[in-house]
Amino acid sequence: MKSTIECMPCFVEHALHVAAMLTGDIPSRHEIIKKVFAELSVMELEETPPEMARKIHRIIRDVTGVHDPYLKIKDESTEFALKLLPFLREDIDKAEDKFEAIVRVVIAGNIIDFGADINFKLESAHDRIKEAFTAPLDIENVRVLQKAMDRAENILYLADNCGEAVFDRLLIEPYRDKITLAVRGFPILNDITSRELAHSGLDGLVKEVIDTGDATPGVVLKYCKPEFVKAFNEADLIISKGQGNFETLSDTERPVVFLFRVKCKVLSAMLDKVPMGSLHVIPMNVSE
Amino acid sequence: MKSTIECMPCFVEHALHVAAMLTGDIPSRHEIIKKVFAELSVMELEETPPEMARKIHRIIRDVTGVHDPYLKIKDESTEFALKLLPFLREDIDKAEDKFEAIVRVVIAGNIIDFGADINFKLESAHDRIKEAFTAPLDIENVRVLQKAMDRAENILYLADNCGEAVFDRLLIEPYRDKITLAVRGFPILNDITSRELAHSGLDGLVKEVIDTGDATPGVVLKYCKPEFVKAFNEADLIISKGQGNFETLSDTERPVVFLFRVKCKVLSAMLDKVPMGSLHVIPMNVSE
Repeated sequence: MKSTIECMPCFVEHALHVAAMLTGDIPSRHEIIKKVFAELSVMELEETPPEMARKIHRIIRDVTGVHDPYLKIKDESTEFALKLLPFLREDIDKAEDKFEAIVRVVIAGNIIDFGADINFKLESAHDRIKEAFTAPLDIENVRVLQKAMDRAENILYLADNCGEAVFDRLLIEPYRDKITLAVRGFPILNDITSRELAHSGLDGLVKEVIDTGDATPGVVLKYCKPEFVKAFNEADLIISKGQGNFETLSDTERPVVFLFRVKCKVLSAMLDKVPMGSLHVIPMNVSE
Repeated sequence: MKSTIECMPCFVEHALHVAAMLTGDIPSRHEIIKKVFAELSVMELEETPPEMARKIHRIIRDVTGVHDPYLKIKDESTEFALKLLPFLREDIDKAEDKFEAIVRVVIAGNIIDFGADINFKLESAHDRIKEAFTAPLDIENVRVLQKAMDRAENILYLADNCGEAVFDRLLIEPYRDKITLAVRGFPILNDITSRELAHSGLDGLVKEVIDTGDATPGVVLKYCKPEFVKAFNEADLIISKGQGNFETLSDTERPVVFLFRVKCKVLSAMLDKVPMGSLHVIPMNVSE
């Protein structure tokens, strides 16, 4: 998915927000935003939004020296999700269609994202996740996902944010022996990296864990390390969590099922004006 | 008033808004915003927001070839204000303190500004202007203004937006023989230029009309023509309408009374958190 002109204010707001989070020093903040403007002044719309986020965060890192701005937020999100997990398991146990209920929860967990929603409050997350049990969802696509997971022998599971990643185990557990779990190679936004695996309860759960080798909040193969590219190209099925992974992989030719909530107006418009916050299961290059 | 980092998203939104107003051609819009980003990447915070607006609109003019994007909006605002004027005169006639009522109306007319409020609707303007009769206002400063106008022999009146300018005659009329009316030198936003003087009913009303010789939506003397600078330096009293004139002249050493509504959060914060939309009469270098 290419960037649009309408993405530009969001890049600017995001850069200012993170800069303000990291430093009260106005000259440093101004240096950051000036460098971001310089990048935006030569940006081509062929680039995906997460590729621009990658550049913005490199600038922020260079100016502030802060390697992982979301460290505390990531750990708080993980803690919160871990507390919530037993209650969500109970809800799922009560559900008629357990697979569908799990899919709803692992998509809804995507609301734990301080990166896209700067006003996000952890407290309201529980209620919003529970709303997902009755939210509109393409059930046929859920069936396609289930069949594809049953059939596949080698699944690459692309995780997204911390917190949300705790819930991913619900979908991973029944298929754990055939899943390779992929995380980001370096800290970027609140996305999960190797550092947060154990805390998220994902250590030792799956066949293999791999990281992208890159700091894009999505998957851009040209930036990824060869081992990841190999895993990506050899998987029978890729499960892609979150909007950032969708934005960077929506043109891939590999078999993938995207699970995400719509978090911005640009994507909402692009998907035929689906509502903000709506849940999506989108299979691509996957037979039914 | 210097720009702040918080002004940046507004510059970007404004440029995108005007670009979208003028062209449906995405490459042209992208060219505009890339050039605006290049300007912002080297902008120093010493510059006032209207100086940046001047640069943004030069870029938009260069790319689109449109010399006066707000032409239609300006004429509609003027029409609207002309229709409203007799009713406002009636309201003023009924007021106990007529001078105060006039001051309220000429400040409130400042809501007719498509430049700062991209969602502005002409229809709601009447009600909002009427609200100004009871809105909080520093009455002592109104008295300072009245005395200063009574006392002065040579008043320079800096007009602001079209529409609003129609109401300015209410404050100008009693002092018409000693007023020089100043308008922008070239089209910029919905600000009044020589072109709109007659339509606004201001032609032949005052001692003299002058233009700044510049396209800043404010007054930056280094860009103004010598005749204007002379008039500015020789006036006993300057009456400055609107936020743009305040932003560019808040550091002047000349005797000036600023009349404006607060239209943005940055200025609101700068003036000790006054409410958005609040009315202000601020004398500077004027004896009481």
